[in-house]
Amino acid sequence: MSSPAHLGKARDLVAESGLDALLIAAPSNIFYFTGFKGGVRLVIPHGGSPTILVGGVDLTAAEEHFSGTGVQVRHIKVTEKVDDVLRDVLRELRVRKLGFDQLPVRTYRRLVKELGEEALVDIEEGVWALRKVKDEREIAAIRKACEIAVKGMEVVSELIEPGRTELEIAGEVERAMRKAGSEGHPFGTIVASGPNSALPHARASRKELREGELVVVDLGATYEGYVSDMTRTFVVGKPEAWQEELHVLTLKAQQETVKAVKAGAKACDVDAVARGIITEAGYGPYFVHSLGHGVGIDVHEPPRLAPGVEEALRAGYVVTVEPGIYLPGKGGVRIEDTVLVTGGGREVLTRFPYGLKAE
Amino acid sequence: MSSPAHLGKARDLVAESGLDALLIAAPSNIFYFTGFKGGVRLVIPHGGSPTILVGGVDLTAAEEHFSGTGVQVRHIKVTEKVDDVLRDVLRELRVRKLGFDQLPVRTYRRLVKELGEEALVDIEEGVWALRKVKDEREIAAIRKACEIAVKGMEVVSELIEPGRTELEIAGEVERAMRKAGSEGHPFGTIVASGPNSALPHARASRKELREGELVVVDLGATYEGYVSDMTRTFVVGKPEAWQEELHVLTLKAQQETVKAVKAGAKACDVDAVARGIITEAGYGPYFVHSLGHGVGIDVHEPPRLAPGVEEALRAGYVVTVEPGIYLPGKGGVRIEDTVLVTGGGREVLTRFPYGLKAE
Repeated sequence: MSSPAHLGKARDLVAESGLDALLIAAPSNIFYFTGFKGGVRLVIPHGGSPTILVGGVDLTAAEEHFSGTGVQVRHIKVTEKVDDVLRDVLRELRVRKLGFDQLPVRTYRRLVKELGEEALVDIEEGVWALRKVKDEREIAAIRKACEIAVKGMEVVSELIEPGRTELEIAGEVERAMRKAGSEGHPFGTIVASGPNSALPHARASRKELREGELVVVDLGATYEGYVSDMTRTFVVGKPEAWQEELHVLTLKAQQETVKAVKAGAKACDVDAVARGIITEAGYGPYFVHSLGHGVGIDVHEPPRLAPGVEEALRAGYVVTVEPGIYLPGKGGVRIEDTVLVTGGGREVLTRFPYGLKAE
Repeated sequence: MSSPAHLGKARDLVAESGLDALLIAAPSNIFYFTGFKGGVRLVIPHGGSPTILVGGVDLTAAEEHFSGTGVQVRHIKVTEKVDDVLRDVLRELRVRKLGFDQLPVRTYRRLVKELGEEALVDIEEGVWALRKVKDEREIAAIRKACEIAVKGMEVVSELIEPGRTELEIAGEVERAMRKAGSEGHPFGTIVASGPNSALPHARASRKELREGELVVVDLGATYEGYVSDMTRTFVVGKPEAWQEELHVLTLKAQQETVKAVKAGAKACDVDAVARGIITEAGYGPYFVHSLGHGVGIDVHEPPRLAPGVEEALRAGYVVTVEPGIYLPGKGGVRIEDTVLVTGGGREVLTRFPYGLKAE
């Protein structure tokens, strides 16, 4: 996805902020502004051509990608240091005031010596302000990544049975997503069974599934560089009463909260819907994380949907809604969808049944 | 893999560097020192207990992991900011001189205000000096990760045929590694066919394999948090003369260079073996990247095996040897092994045939 429109937004950001140039180092920001996966630094001056610094490993791909775009490709030779080449590029452009997104402290310290501390402006928030609002092409890519994630979840049902390992299930799910066109795994697939399901960031392990266990499956796909994120919780065999209760409650919290997602709603208020329902039922202390997060090129983007976050959602935001209840040592339930904020309300992009029973 | 030995090394580093504490932020460094995957910051004081800062998402897992270890778990509540909690922890410990590994510039700027620039010491190189030399348990984990990678490569042979997509093959390979116990994918599996094989960092795409194409397959596995990295190049059907020539040359360069890997050899001199062979054959301009890199918790660790890197290898280093020749628009060959530097020489950990023909 080549993105001349995004490069134009970067130029606007340079102008509005009174800068001579932007220095972009985060790989996902380089991709956002250029549509190119690779390269180590991108310099976008107020006037003139942007320059991307690439190692030999990316050189041919970069020359192909940027041919005719006006973006200069600067090869960092195997004997050169990134920071030295960067210094040369900034000097050639006579940059005095520089915006940056993310930098190694070592690079930052060198730039302070070269330009002075006052000349260095943290514009990461400004870049996020752009990235948070997805345009049509980005939404189309995320939509497709969500469809692929659903294909992954579809194969889970047949695999929820005693004796299979979490890793084996992760492998089957990932294979199905690859087959459906996923370019990669935005995060390691979570298959968390029994006590593991009570650990929100458990990964798949060598543990075998056992009769009567809860199994949290959290997966995502990548399409045209954009990702998806969804979670369902299953039970091996017949659910016990406490498992059903936990699942009904989490699902109610999730569904009610999805309805609260709309342009103008504050992130903290959306979080409060799920947190209120779970707290009222007496499980407040077991909902140990934020309600959700933005999704785009990265799987965890701003905004956080969490207590204290006053930011209002806008049309074009894509966020997760993922309440969870975790009973340490016993088991947990999490239900998550990727949701697009539209002009009129919201659209759930990860459409898949919510049943606890896999069959 | 819990690592009290590594925590002891961190304490030595604090003492030797005349610091009051280390502030560790890189996830792989936190894992190296604690054996825990998760947490956002780790503070290791000169005397007294280390403190790990964790969000709610990791809290239960952290409390289990660190129970009885003397490491304090500090919960960052959903309404708290990491930098605020960190400031409190550093004040409680009366830290005046602080070593750090990697920090967001925003955090660094706050710490400069709090402690002064002189008080902040970049100790990333010191941490790498520790991490580069793998101990027996780490080598055992990497060895296993290499065995799993080989299981992945074993399924490739049957899949190198016209009509299959690169993504489909990636999915089958990753599934085989999951089944063999891989905890995750240290990097997106590369399946690069035809012209894509001439792009060193191509990923798997929706492209179908065609008769007569070169196919570069670069994959790795994860075991106990440690990774592996290997590459083989295949041909779909019968190789043409230029493909065989390229393969024979790359393989010769790779095999001769593996023999040059030993304790005391300089990284640049090892690189020079492959670069010399390839240059002498007239393909120097087409070997566009470094010879290799360290492998451990991260797939790309120091040292770089590249021109200009004077550092001598030491027993316990684990590095890749991966020369490649890339003819833009036509095709490329890369052959890569993960290699352990031993007292007496070296051991290739990714043992798998090198044949261009998959059958």
